[in-house]
Amino acid sequence: MADDWFLLPFELKLQRAHARALLAAGILSEGELADLRDGLARLEEQYTDCECPESDAEDLHTWVESELVELAGQAGRKIHTARSRNDQVATLLKLYAIDAGARLSRATGKLVRTCCIRAKDWAHMVFPVQTHCQFAAPGTVGFWVLRYAAAFERLGDQLESCLTQWRRYCPLGSGAVAGSSIPIDRTIQAAELGFDGPSLNALDSTGTRDECLQLLSSATQAALHLQSFATDVIAFSQTPFGWTVYPAGFGTGSSMMPNKANPDAMELLRGQCCDIMAAHAQAVLLLKGLPSGYNRDLQCIKPLLHRAIDNILGLCSMADAFLQELDFDTARLADSLKLGDISATLRMEEQVLQGTPLRDAHRAVAVTPASGDSCDSALHSVDAYQTAGSASPAETLRIADELLQRVRV
Amino acid sequence: MADDWFLLPFELKLQRAHARALLAAGILSEGELADLRDGLARLEEQYTDCECPESDAEDLHTWVESELVELAGQAGRKIHTARSRNDQVATLLKLYAIDAGARLSRATGKLVRTCCIRAKDWAHMVFPVQTHCQFAAPGTVGFWVLRYAAAFERLGDQLESCLTQWRRYCPLGSGAVAGSSIPIDRTIQAAELGFDGPSLNALDSTGTRDECLQLLSSATQAALHLQSFATDVIAFSQTPFGWTVYPAGFGTGSSMMPNKANPDAMELLRGQCCDIMAAHAQAVLLLKGLPSGYNRDLQCIKPLLHRAIDNILGLCSMADAFLQELDFDTARLADSLKLGDISATLRMEEQVLQGTPLRDAHRAVAVTPASGDSCDSALHSVDAYQTAGSASPAETLRIADELLQRVRV
Amino acid sequence: MADDWFLLPFELKLQRAHARALLAAGILSEGELADLRDGLARLEEQYTDCECPESDAEDLHTWVESELVELAGQAGRKIHTARSRNDQVATLLKLYAIDAGARLSRATGKLVRTCCIRAKDWAHMVFPVQTHCQFAAPGTVGFWVLRYAAAFERLGDQLESCLTQWRRYCPLGSGAVAGSSIPIDRTIQAAELGFDGPSLNALDSTGTRDECLQLLSSATQAALHLQSFATDVIAFSQTPFGWTVYPAGFGTGSSMMPNKANPDAMELLRGQCCDIMAAHAQAVLLLKGLPSGYNRDLQCIKPLLHRAIDNILGLCSMADAFLQELDFDTARLADSLKLGDISATLRMEEQVLQGTPLRDAHRAVAVTPASGDSCDSALHSVDAYQTAGSASPAETLRIADELLQRVRV
Amino acid sequence: MADDWFLLPFELKLQRAHARALLAAGILSEGELADLRDGLARLEEQYTDCECPESDAEDLHTWVESELVELAGQAGRKIHTARSRNDQVATLLKLYAIDAGARLSRATGKLVRTCCIRAKDWAHMVFPVQTHCQFAAPGTVGFWVLRYAAAFERLGDQLESCLTQWRRYCPLGSGAVAGSSIPIDRTIQAAELGFDGPSLNALDSTGTRDECLQLLSSATQAALHLQSFATDVIAFSQTPFGWTVYPAGFGTGSSMMPNKANPDAMELLRGQCCDIMAAHAQAVLLLKGLPSGYNRDLQCIKPLLHRAIDNILGLCSMADAFLQELDFDTARLADSLKLGDISATLRMEEQVLQGTPLRDAHRAVAVTPASGDSCDSALHSVDAYQTAGSASPAETLRIADELLQRVRV
Repeated sequence: MADDWFLLPFELKLQRAHARALLAAGILSEGELADLRDGLARLEEQYTDCECPESDAEDLHTWVESELVELAGQAGRKIHTARSRNDQVATLLKLYAIDAGARLSRATGKLVRTCCIRAKDWAHMVFPVQTHCQFAAPGTVGFWVLRYAAAFERLGDQLESCLTQWRRYCPLGSGAVAGSSIPIDRTIQAAELGFDGPSLNALDSTGTRDECLQLLSSATQAALHLQSFATDVIAFSQTPFGWTVYPAGFGTGSSMMPNKANPDAMELLRGQCCDIMAAHAQAVLLLKGLPSGYNRDLQCIKPLLHRAIDNILGLCSMADAFLQELDFDTARLADSLKLGDISATLRMEEQVLQGTPLRDAHRAVAVTPASGDSCDSALHSVDAYQTAGSASPAETLRIADELLQRVRV
Repeated sequence: MADDWFLLPFELKLQRAHARALLAAGILSEGELADLRDGLARLEEQYTDCECPESDAEDLHTWVESELVELAGQAGRKIHTARSRNDQVATLLKLYAIDAGARLSRATGKLVRTCCIRAKDWAHMVFPVQTHCQFAAPGTVGFWVLRYAAAFERLGDQLESCLTQWRRYCPLGSGAVAGSSIPIDRTIQAAELGFDGPSLNALDSTGTRDECLQLLSSATQAALHLQSFATDVIAFSQTPFGWTVYPAGFGTGSSMMPNKANPDAMELLRGQCCDIMAAHAQAVLLLKGLPSGYNRDLQCIKPLLHRAIDNILGLCSMADAFLQELDFDTARLADSLKLGDISATLRMEEQVLQGTPLRDAHRAVAVTPASGDSCDSALHSVDAYQTAGSASPAETLRIADELLQRVRV
Repeated sequence: MADDWFLLPFELKLQRAHARALLAAGILSEGELADLRDGLARLEEQYTDCECPESDAEDLHTWVESELVELAGQAGRKIHTARSRNDQVATLLKLYAIDAGARLSRATGKLVRTCCIRAKDWAHMVFPVQTHCQFAAPGTVGFWVLRYAAAFERLGDQLESCLTQWRRYCPLGSGAVAGSSIPIDRTIQAAELGFDGPSLNALDSTGTRDECLQLLSSATQAALHLQSFATDVIAFSQTPFGWTVYPAGFGTGSSMMPNKANPDAMELLRGQCCDIMAAHAQAVLLLKGLPSGYNRDLQCIKPLLHRAIDNILGLCSMADAFLQELDFDTARLADSLKLGDISATLRMEEQVLQGTPLRDAHRAVAVTPASGDSCDSALHSVDAYQTAGSASPAETLRIADELLQRVRV
Repeated sequence: MADDWFLLPFELKLQRAHARALLAAGILSEGELADLRDGLARLEEQYTDCECPESDAEDLHTWVESELVELAGQAGRKIHTARSRNDQVATLLKLYAIDAGARLSRATGKLVRTCCIRAKDWAHMVFPVQTHCQFAAPGTVGFWVLRYAAAFERLGDQLESCLTQWRRYCPLGSGAVAGSSIPIDRTIQAAELGFDGPSLNALDSTGTRDECLQLLSSATQAALHLQSFATDVIAFSQTPFGWTVYPAGFGTGSSMMPNKANPDAMELLRGQCCDIMAAHAQAVLLLKGLPSGYNRDLQCIKPLLHRAIDNILGLCSMADAFLQELDFDTARLADSLKLGDISATLRMEEQVLQGTPLRDAHRAVAVTPASGDSCDSALHSVDAYQTAGSASPAETLRIADELLQRVRV
């Protein structure tokens, strides 16, 4: 039951919705419904945010039912009418996915906000932007961190669209596999639980875990962006870079080497993201080869999903806290601007603007590297960018403000 | 270049859109634009649906550029202005994803339609529906096949929502990593290519492959449903079941055993789905640990994506053809109805409808199994289902008709 | 520290070995060595098989060191000489892998033994062996279960060979990344810990997790065989088969359907195997993209490995217990022999033995299926097999006895 | 058939071995054996190293058999006696795995040799070794590259041990699933094909792909080491490092940025390794959920395995060629030695050797960083290492020589 326990709030909600439908179907009387509601309220009061109690029950669902028999008597013996654990579990996982998806959406919103705030802080902090791990062009630290605002804004949008999809069809009322001969009005259940309507096919509804896969796939994308952020910070902290002022409290020393201060939190972030990114493949493996209809293997998706969601939310929150404390060493950034002839593209484009075809300007600049950029000329360069979404400070400020207005937190 | 070649149609479209933006920026004259358009038309005419030509070019993009220099002279030497292969590749992959997503959506629509048609054909063909690989309750073959209509309808909806997301932001104009000092109007490019507007951050736009991951994740869900269908058909074809009349042309004999006729096509379908389902994890592996900005590793996602999409479209089409020819042996289905006391739940619910609490009725029926269902009583049972989405023939027909009206093909 | 705690026995062993080497190098006096040994004995006594204590320590290694400073004073302040957590962790993981590999080898040995015992019990219990999920040829239940004896025998051999490989090189003494200027004799450490000698390169030794990958890969193969066994049992228990007498205590009923008894334990076995089978890919993902030398990400492999090993050992043990209680319904098996014309191959081979070329005999038998096998003729058929490793009862008994003599438990 | 064609050499070898066993069993006459051998010699002559011919045959095995009927008449019609495609395919995959494993072992041997040669070239080239992407301690480039020699030496040992395991049991003679009533002596087949003896259980032999999994798992480890090497080289080539003299012919320029020279070959190496590393998980996915006995899904492992092996061999060879041309910029290396106070550990150990307990010396050095290492003092430091496998030049030379003597190429 410990593996199921996190579903308790959704289980209680489901019981309420089902009881209402049983009343409408004439299975429960008004009095029995009241008894059940009282029982459910008692369970909610007693167990919300509690550890899983000791019990011999096979799972959460049988435990709740036997508690209701205890608390509501005859009504408890009727509550499982026109219902199976199969449609119950399918519904709970959908409710959980909707809740988890909304929380992850808010977590991405928070990251968008923090990234935008830091992007504004750092909008004029010039440094070399890289491609292929090579200094490529002048940019700003604000422009860099804004990339994660853009990424998480997209992910938030994706999650909101998932929520809409998941709310279309309510599995409850599908029974074990084929529905029920009790004339339950499934639209009542669906409405009570916040769905658009009942699902279309009982066999599909009890055996499908599509919303779990979609949720894990979105969590994987979140994890990919977080580990990319960690990878960047670790790279920026390399000894010959020295760009970051690594926040105390997010690093540790070495047991052997007195000279070391390691970016441990970012390495752990990168490492722990793998736990989430591997969960989608594990769910696919679990589902592969199963015949139609409920199979007990499907139970195994519960702890997998729960762990992945708890992890990604924790990592989003950690990254957010880290980002708020992260700082940069402007002197070391300025030193780096002298390397790699990073104004070459801008010099080439200057020639293009004066009429030289691109291919000729490219060749001309390639054979005459600059003698050494100063920080000032790089700053000048950064202002030279003219395109939307470019590394110019003005553009970074504009986009950051736009996203700050738009973001849901 | 062979790995890129499938992107040619999108490459030509992109060149046209970029040329228009260069005209607006004053980089190209009207005459040069016309030269480029002529050149692009020539390339389209000559190479559409062709094998990849022999060439020393590093990739498709350099090949097209050098062809344009050949065909359009001076204008060709200007076409790469304010552009990098990095934003080019990112844009092409988005255009490809939009195209592939739309094709996959149509393929799922086709499957919805075929499933619904067969669901109507088989709406009264009664057989035992299973859970845990055990005969569980009476249902119909039509109800079974409708599960895949429901699954693919959801997937189609999911894909359409992806298309909307992917069309929001156009990466073109992001340059190599930080934009450009050439004052290109990125909204022109975006509009020409069917996007809502330019992307928000050049660093994010050139290094992100989110739409590839989303597409692979949707393809994985499609593959999961297909291999589930294959698993069902293989199970229904087992010797003691004998339910299917396996379509000739989709099976083979045994080299050693004269008595065997094997459901090879379904086994291959189940096996080949793995190639698609593994692609998402491979893309995640590829992206993991990469620093921000373009890295050449990203090239490797092209053949991975292309193969997965070609495969899933091929498998959808094969499954569709198979489903049109699949038939069932009603005598063997009828024999099976006598096994497993499959009317037990309906008998229990009959007691519930007469006022017995569910838990008491459950116990009563469990200790008095029926003496042997006949096919007729099972048929009666199927009509007893009263809930939306149940296995009753009426409900199967209703849902099938609803989906047939709604489906996009 | 909770994630490390399972490494405590290996940590204490390592400390002892390291202390001996420090004595030999003149860093510790005999008295200091004695102090450390006393301290280590105290820790062993107090903490073996205990829950992880509350502590602020960053990890197990710093906790043990600070306990030793507590317990052994000055000697405790010296114990970390010529050592880093990096080579410590690498050594502990190797010691753990060796221990876990040996335990898994014993678990496979136990399965070989149980499979062989059941193979002898069931050596004459005739049933249809399947390919492509079709009845193919007569075989025996003993022949079927012996397949898992053969599979686990191979796996045991593979694991023993891994143990030999892992014992070649001891990482201890590699320091943080480049060795130490303290003239420690690494052969002493290696010998004390049961290795052939010191590892060859400190950078490789501290950053490599090859033995973890090999262990996870072997655990994956074990899991694949277990889930194949579960899949077989579930298939044999299908309603129209009814071959198994499913052991009480390994199945459950249905919450909705009074007629159902589900093979839950086997479904959970199949499902839980996925947790192990996914761990190898997760470890690969974790390691991908890391630069040479120790990175904190490597910490994340500890809980991953620990969970996978605990799980696979638990599942091996569960499968073993299940197998001891599993039984078969000979009447249902006998019924099945009448289906599928399963003696066809043997009839064809009879013609071959009388001189007909195989291809002609194949065609002849294919067009004249038998009119219905009886159980007796199938029993006769099973004795007809003449090849080594075939399904004949004599061969099953011979191989089972051979493996029972050979198996290490 | 194109997917099978790479198995032709093994198929021909298998046919010869089987024909010998058929002769011993009295199925073939001496004359028929000679006919078959002639036919096989013709096929070998005509098709070795050829493209797959056009054919309607279902697979390679049926094609070869029909060619033999063509070439050897009556004997051809007998060749498939006491054999199925199932045991044939299982045997071919084992023969292929043995061949591929041996080739991969040689490829690792070649890498060991090249790494050792470069380790000797670079044994005195001092540079900062890193942990956590931070400069940690003085080492040499030779010490760094020797890490890959050590890794590939272990992998070679692992592969040789796999070869021994795979050669234990020959599947041929297992028939379709249960053996044969033709009294074939399977020890003849096994001996002819280089196995120790026949496999133990026909059901296991025809349905198991353990050697494929082991081979893919070893290939994954090879790929992990290669991508780690690539990651190192890319890191060493970063603009503020500039340590490498990147070999011309392994990099490219940028289409937009005239100042860029990118380490493309290493990025592609890192990226393409993912194709191999993902193959193991895909094979696991393919095998999951399959029932005992041959299933057509198993066909899909052939192209997966073939592609992974071809890829890993190609990448080993590319890495080897690259390593032979790679060079380092000693001036830039020397500059780097001044950063990160990398002699701290050695200074601390100096105090330890003078009697200070490690923990006190660690604290003392941590608060008094050196004022700036010169290259000379770092060189001195490198010689200070005293432990086996350390970064001292003497140790690097010793280990390199030891491995050069031991390595099999």
